[in-house]
Amino acid sequence: MDTTKLPKMLYGGDYNPEQWDESIWPEDMRLIPLAGMNIATVNVFSWAMLQPNEDTYHFETLDRIMDMLHKNGIYACLATSTGAHPAWMARKYPEVLRTDFNGRQRKFGGRHNSCPNSPLYRSLSTQLAAKLAERYKDHPALLLWHVSNEYGGECYCDRCETAFREWLRAKYGTLDKLNEQWNTRFWGHTFYEWDEIVLPNALSEQWSSDRTCFQGISLDYTRFNSDSLLECYKLEYDAIKAQTPDLPVTTNLMGTFKGLDYFKWAKHMDIIAWDNYPSMDTPTSFTAMTHDLMRGLKSGAPFLLMEQTPSQQNWQAYNTLKRPGIMRLWSYQAVAHGSDSVMFFQLRRSVGACEKYHGALIEHVGHEHTRVFRECAQLGRELDSLDTKLLGSRLPSRIAIMYDWENRWAIEYSSGPTIDLKYVDEIHNYYRALYEQGHQVDIVSFEEDLSPYAIVLAPVMYMVKPGMAARIEAYVAAGGKFVTTFFSGIVNENDIVTLGGYPGELRGLLGIWAEEIDALFPGHHNRIVMKDSLGNLQGEYKCSILCDLIHSEGAEVLAEYGDDFYKGMPVLTRNRFGSGEAWYVASSPDADFLQGFLGALCDSSNIKPLPGKQPGVEVSLRSREGRSYLFVLNHNAAEVTVELGEFAGVDLITGTAVSGQVPLAGCDVLIIEQFA
Amino acid sequence: MDTTKLPKMLYGGDYNPEQWDESIWPEDMRLIPLAGMNIATVNVFSWAMLQPNEDTYHFETLDRIMDMLHKNGIYACLATSTGAHPAWMARKYPEVLRTDFNGRQRKFGGRHNSCPNSPLYRSLSTQLAAKLAERYKDHPALLLWHVSNEYGGECYCDRCETAFREWLRAKYGTLDKLNEQWNTRFWGHTFYEWDEIVLPNALSEQWSSDRTCFQGISLDYTRFNSDSLLECYKLEYDAIKAQTPDLPVTTNLMGTFKGLDYFKWAKHMDIIAWDNYPSMDTPTSFTAMTHDLMRGLKSGAPFLLMEQTPSQQNWQAYNTLKRPGIMRLWSYQAVAHGSDSVMFFQLRRSVGACEKYHGALIEHVGHEHTRVFRECAQLGRELDSLDTKLLGSRLPSRIAIMYDWENRWAIEYSSGPTIDLKYVDEIHNYYRALYEQGHQVDIVSFEEDLSPYAIVLAPVMYMVKPGMAARIEAYVAAGGKFVTTFFSGIVNENDIVTLGGYPGELRGLLGIWAEEIDALFPGHHNRIVMKDSLGNLQGEYKCSILCDLIHSEGAEVLAEYGDDFYKGMPVLTRNRFGSGEAWYVASSPDADFLQGFLGALCDSSNIKPLPGKQPGVEVSLRSREGRSYLFVLNHNAAEVTVELGEFAGVDLITGTAVSGQVPLAGCDVLIIEQFA
Amino acid sequence: MDTTKLPKMLYGGDYNPEQWDESIWPEDMRLIPLAGMNIATVNVFSWAMLQPNEDTYHFETLDRIMDMLHKNGIYACLATSTGAHPAWMARKYPEVLRTDFNGRQRKFGGRHNSCPNSPLYRSLSTQLAAKLAERYKDHPALLLWHVSNEYGGECYCDRCETAFREWLRAKYGTLDKLNEQWNTRFWGHTFYEWDEIVLPNALSEQWSSDRTCFQGISLDYTRFNSDSLLECYKLEYDAIKAQTPDLPVTTNLMGTFKGLDYFKWAKHMDIIAWDNYPSMDTPTSFTAMTHDLMRGLKSGAPFLLMEQTPSQQNWQAYNTLKRPGIMRLWSYQAVAHGSDSVMFFQLRRSVGACEKYHGALIEHVGHEHTRVFRECAQLGRELDSLDTKLLGSRLPSRIAIMYDWENRWAIEYSSGPTIDLKYVDEIHNYYRALYEQGHQVDIVSFEEDLSPYAIVLAPVMYMVKPGMAARIEAYVAAGGKFVTTFFSGIVNENDIVTLGGYPGELRGLLGIWAEEIDALFPGHHNRIVMKDSLGNLQGEYKCSILCDLIHSEGAEVLAEYGDDFYKGMPVLTRNRFGSGEAWYVASSPDADFLQGFLGALCDSSNIKPLPGKQPGVEVSLRSREGRSYLFVLNHNAAEVTVELGEFAGVDLITGTAVSGQVPLAGCDVLIIEQFA
Repeated sequence: MDTTKLPKMLYGGDYNPEQWDESIWPEDMRLIPLAGMNIATVNVFSWAMLQPNEDTYHFETLDRIMDMLHKNGIYACLATSTGAHPAWMARKYPEVLRTDFNGRQRKFGGRHNSCPNSPLYRSLSTQLAAKLAERYKDHPALLLWHVSNEYGGECYCDRCETAFREWLRAKYGTLDKLNEQWNTRFWGHTFYEWDEIVLPNALSEQWSSDRTCFQGISLDYTRFNSDSLLECYKLEYDAIKAQTPDLPVTTNLMGTFKGLDYFKWAKHMDIIAWDNYPSMDTPTSFTAMTHDLMRGLKSGAPFLLMEQTPSQQNWQAYNTLKRPGIMRLWSYQAVAHGSDSVMFFQLRRSVGACEKYHGALIEHVGHEHTRVFRECAQLGRELDSLDTKLLGSRLPSRIAIMYDWENRWAIEYSSGPTIDLKYVDEIHNYYRALYEQGHQVDIVSFEEDLSPYAIVLAPVMYMVKPGMAARIEAYVAAGGKFVTTFFSGIVNENDIVTLGGYPGELRGLLGIWAEEIDALFPGHHNRIVMKDSLGNLQGEYKCSILCDLIHSEGAEVLAEYGDDFYKGMPVLTRNRFGSGEAWYVASSPDADFLQGFLGALCDSSNIKPLPGKQPGVEVSLRSREGRSYLFVLNHNAAEVTVELGEFAGVDLITGTAVSGQVPLAGCDVLIIEQFA
Repeated sequence: MDTTKLPKMLYGGDYNPEQWDESIWPEDMRLIPLAGMNIATVNVFSWAMLQPNEDTYHFETLDRIMDMLHKNGIYACLATSTGAHPAWMARKYPEVLRTDFNGRQRKFGGRHNSCPNSPLYRSLSTQLAAKLAERYKDHPALLLWHVSNEYGGECYCDRCETAFREWLRAKYGTLDKLNEQWNTRFWGHTFYEWDEIVLPNALSEQWSSDRTCFQGISLDYTRFNSDSLLECYKLEYDAIKAQTPDLPVTTNLMGTFKGLDYFKWAKHMDIIAWDNYPSMDTPTSFTAMTHDLMRGLKSGAPFLLMEQTPSQQNWQAYNTLKRPGIMRLWSYQAVAHGSDSVMFFQLRRSVGACEKYHGALIEHVGHEHTRVFRECAQLGRELDSLDTKLLGSRLPSRIAIMYDWENRWAIEYSSGPTIDLKYVDEIHNYYRALYEQGHQVDIVSFEEDLSPYAIVLAPVMYMVKPGMAARIEAYVAAGGKFVTTFFSGIVNENDIVTLGGYPGELRGLLGIWAEEIDALFPGHHNRIVMKDSLGNLQGEYKCSILCDLIHSEGAEVLAEYGDDFYKGMPVLTRNRFGSGEAWYVASSPDADFLQGFLGALCDSSNIKPLPGKQPGVEVSLRSREGRSYLFVLNHNAAEVTVELGEFAGVDLITGTAVSGQVPLAGCDVLIIEQFA
Repeated sequence: MDTTKLPKMLYGGDYNPEQWDESIWPEDMRLIPLAGMNIATVNVFSWAMLQPNEDTYHFETLDRIMDMLHKNGIYACLATSTGAHPAWMARKYPEVLRTDFNGRQRKFGGRHNSCPNSPLYRSLSTQLAAKLAERYKDHPALLLWHVSNEYGGECYCDRCETAFREWLRAKYGTLDKLNEQWNTRFWGHTFYEWDEIVLPNALSEQWSSDRTCFQGISLDYTRFNSDSLLECYKLEYDAIKAQTPDLPVTTNLMGTFKGLDYFKWAKHMDIIAWDNYPSMDTPTSFTAMTHDLMRGLKSGAPFLLMEQTPSQQNWQAYNTLKRPGIMRLWSYQAVAHGSDSVMFFQLRRSVGACEKYHGALIEHVGHEHTRVFRECAQLGRELDSLDTKLLGSRLPSRIAIMYDWENRWAIEYSSGPTIDLKYVDEIHNYYRALYEQGHQVDIVSFEEDLSPYAIVLAPVMYMVKPGMAARIEAYVAAGGKFVTTFFSGIVNENDIVTLGGYPGELRGLLGIWAEEIDALFPGHHNRIVMKDSLGNLQGEYKCSILCDLIHSEGAEVLAEYGDDFYKGMPVLTRNRFGSGEAWYVASSPDADFLQGFLGALCDSSNIKPLPGKQPGVEVSLRSREGRSYLFVLNHNAAEVTVELGEFAGVDLITGTAVSGQVPLAGCDVLIIEQFA
């Protein structure tokens, strides 16, 4: 999807008028434009309304909604409603119901409730998508398609089991190959017939959602489940595209959600859209990282912020209000990281059921005289004034962090060495160290072309997929700087250990051998003792979680462990390889180490921080066709003075020229278009 | 039941001689009267003995028990034994077995094990009750009927599902009405056929016992389940009443037990009876409150303390002994709050199975030379000396706290704003503030006539049922003082939000609008800053959990928030309405605030505390036919000096006249009949 | 099994070459002997390989393995592979699958996965064992049989239910007797037909794995389940013995594993073998105790350490490396307590599935140049130099601690008085007090002949089995010193209370009556106040968990409670009985009390500590045919000076004579053969 062709920054959100008496609709049409909104996501959960029984479709209400939107100058992001099947379907065709991790067939209820391998669900959902596409393909309000909703969850029914065997047969070809890659000779699990394979759940190989006897089986099931849901998506996608080949189709993703391989999904999405629900105590760097991950799904293309709450959530334990200015600030944070929309769940707060205490543009009181509405309307005015300037602009970066869902699954299915290793946290540690220094980062897949980057970080690259080691070697040989860490290079794509010494296929590149991997108890740490200073990196730091006991095989040792029986063994190494450098960080260091280390690395690559960075202030740069837009976001409650250095331009929000030292109020934002 | 007709204060407890060899019975008949006891609850778990198979009844053992009791001057509280079905029934008719929250049909075991909608269970249990009534209706020992035991638990079987649909059809009439009141358009849950509705459990709408996707469905199921069990009770009740119309029938309730709407049950009980099992760390005010709630079930009528332990429980994590004097003290606490009995579980400690470490009058050692027996016997002598004096006396109060089970269910099913809001705790906060100042309180249903009360407190009146708002307005208009709090007036009886601004139907009465509701993290708080002093209420206090952000719409603002972005917004308001006042407390305040606030309110209504109150000392007053009995209970371990002020009379326990300053030993009690 | 006939100390471990390509075998045969190893446990999980379908057996690979071992001078500990059934069997015969505690029939997966009462599993597993015995009975490598693997787990299927009824019928004969011993009249659970009895699990009497409504039912089920698994073992045992009557047969036990009555199992094992997996924070005294328990299973006969990890485990939360020297130290600890082997899991680390991060002799790197290999090889050289000296030697002791699995089950099924009472912890408290003073202890069954012991400790002897009280009385009468504690003598073998006053059958012997049992909250304690000093025992100590409120009935009171309402009641008593003494410790004392108390007791029996004991240093003595071997193990990281007193001899590891004060490095070991 080419967002440069959008009429303006999209501003709006989920809107469910079919859940209300139509008498309220005119008031909605007064209020939504009053907030400056131009798009509504509709029809997200209307299957039961659209198809009251197998043989009847009823589109009249949706017709009226679409017409009403158009009449009021609001675009439609039209959903397909297949995120929850109707009750009649569950009753008539129990096959559409999922079977859960505990082997229980579910009854009707909730959402995300359809078995992805139910032929009936697949045909009925695809048919609905096709009918919607056919009916609304020429509707003037229609801007964008939204398939289903927040895909996720697992099914363990017999149909899925059969489909899993087919999926495996397609992957492995023979049982011999499968037995080898699952190492089924362990515990005598050799399969002689495909039908002997069962799904890994609480009744078979797993004793909790991430504890398994056979990592290979569970890993393949996770892939299969992601693929099964993707197949459902693709069926709807294809049905829509057959009718509206030129309209973009998407679905709303969920950031670091674990269950789906979003890089694989992204290939089948015309634009990335995602739902951002941080808690009040989520670090701003974590949200920033997640935006960057979503942007990375399509190699840096702008995305849509499809949902956020105007103020309050309902499903967290403690649903604090977003403080004044926070909604605006976080909305701009999304834009700063590549979003070409600001959208909410939802426009009118529901009157009953489990989301009635989730915030909305129009609260239960029903009028515009609320803090929330006022803040939304102010933002609407501002976004309107931005016009199309930012649309399609990208974030230039010379630093990439590699991220991979399969790698995460494998790490977190691992039995040993520690339960404390969380992939996303390790990624975030490296991300935050760059974020805190004002460096812009791309998050990229294991398949991404690395050549544009001066520095590539791959924290805990536990799984090395076929061809990856060679690609990374080529990248480094050509002058790149590559950093990886403890517990990397251990297994192949099926979680089979690469024999011959860790870090396996990366051993030659890194010039080290990891003999042992020590796991530290919570609260324990070792010390990183620098041998010499490296930029600002000097003296001692802490590290924890895992400590690789490594030997240099040619790599230069820059720091050693300071404690325990492996005191004096290397903990930070650099191996010169071709024209580049391959670094190894043998443990999980503290934040000070990472700031110092990555700062030094950036210095050595002559990568400069963005202007304006200071504690609590986030900076980001978007650019397009030679124009640059610097975002400065003050996450502090208090005013700060921003130091722009040589950067000067016009603040797009206020229209005033800014340069040098600029005061910025608490929670306030600058979007500075650089002077040409 | 008119307890004034009782021969004396009932003293006794559960007695299961059928679980023992009959050779031990004579020793029981020596020991029970030796402890001064006059009543035994028998036949609680004897179904398997009474009916060894479907066609055979065996009442001979029970005959001997009843005759033995009579011969020894002991009344029988005769239970129907239907609290646990026999093993043969479960084997022959699996339909009597419950299906649990996880959808698993249970096997034989435990108690509370019968499906309340099993036609077979209903007919067999009713038949047993009828046969017992027929057989023992003229037995001279028979004083009271005790149906089943501690009703509770849920069933999710297909029969219950069918019955639920019938219950819903009776409630709503049409699916349209049901769909509207459950807001099923949310997530496309519209039902087109009654058969599409399934029970809300772990397989459908709920993911834990109090987390649900559809509050309306879960709320109705909870009502239905309470009604289903009540129907079982009523069937037995009717069968018994057909034989013994003049004998009172009851069942043993469990205080603040959540699962059953005891106000609804109370209408079908001739007298309230309940089982009091505080832990050693239960606040005495909490026990007092629970007694008052039980008394409130029948608008202030005396009740029966049906069970308490003489010393030790078995099912808590740490079963401490009741310290010397505590059993006596807590027994009098029950009487002080309206009990006309003191009864124990149980009279002889069982020899095996899971209650063998639950205390009893007769311990495993088998004789009377134990601390526990001695304390029971002393209490027996004292109760005997009270004769019939206290029977039927009531507790005069001008203050009421409104309490409602449906309101509690709805609050605790809510998804958002916080998981920390516990209805009973909020009720207790208000109760304790009055208790600590020596004020006597009634706890009343949402249906109770409020006109006798000068002050009515309704903490967290989240659900406003039809007609309630008007009744409360009329009460205030006529001069009453009404207090409600944050998160009130939000929904109707089906958990559908009252649109137009919180607190919904109470908004006019209270003269405020709650724009937003902030949820505080645990350990966080805001401040309540008094604008002027109100009695002793002045300066600052803390509040937590939820903070309503309210605007006055005519109400006088007496205190404001002291922190956060809503600093300066009202937190305590008073709206003069007709001749009365409607107060709003916008957050959950600390104990000091509540004492000051309620103290000031009582002062302004000229409500005086009872004499004798001081820290750790509880006071209560019962009266009947112009005679007043002041209870003074010293919960302290140390002696105190009680200040009686102008109250003077005779201590019924010692028979001595008391007035002015009276010493009272640790754990000791005064029951002072006021001089006429 | 007579280990004196072994060729030398066994050194080796689990070896699974069938899980690897045969091309790697020669390297194994180079490395394993290089580490000085002489035994390999093979064929543990090969059922799927040995029997690829019901009609086919394939022994060729195993033939090659056995021949290879023999050719390389390595003995085989040959397992029967029945610890996990093949996938084809689960598919073809679902009856072999277990049904879990929640009533769910499992699917194929994991291990310990066969229903022990499946006739098919029994016949197929026995047949496999028979075929293995027949094929390899004369193989020169074969030294030892290893049946299945780490027996454990439960099954709740219908076949087990039927078998349980048969087991009960055999035990009780009549339902009347069963109803009496289960006290089924409680809650009206009387059974009239055997078929009415169901297994106690989450669907019937239990609501968690150790919470039950009927202790008697759950206790019998636990016995039945242990017996069912034992029956599977015995069937294989018999099939093997029919072919190789002279070869020892064992299975690998798991120390204090709760589920199986190892004393009963031990009767059917030719030698005890067990798997020792302490965590880094397991007290060394706990490991020592467990070794002693395993040795006690066969009345002191030497046992085999069948498994330990060379360094790292995988299944703990935090799998720390064994620090340098720890593997050697803990290996010698096993030998010091009676092991005649040092064996590992495993020899080559697996390449995939859930144990790939479990340490091995040969790590993933594949060569011998690792710390782990070097430490193993050093130990191999040392063990080789010990030759046959220690084989068959025993640990002389005059102190016994009584231990019983059924007693543990009953204590931990108990509902009340506290959830904090853990039998093994109480045993360990007493054990540690002796261990810390250098006293050697036997851990013996409730059936053991007590006459060899001067002191017998029976902490929490809750269950007194038929005849036991008389045997203990006879022991004391003859001069023995017997110590038991709070919560003892309470129930018979079916958890039915012995009426007439605690401690029941032990009351006469102990000369006390326990009137009440108080449970203390966590963090609370009472004080033990000594009346006079007893050896070093004087002043005050703390006690917690439970406090028996006892009265002396002739016993001498040596200490009293210092607090609470039972201040002044006895807490330590001694009753002179015949020529001996019966002691009662009425609460769970702190470590200082136990050291002082048991020290005084040993003094009074003239039992001297072993030489060399000091903090962090463990001592042990093995002897055979007049020769004594003193083990001194320094668990400290730092060097200590060992004081040998009058003990002098030759250190078998270094071959040097030692006496007087001997320096001993951190983690180092002395094995001193005493001068004759």
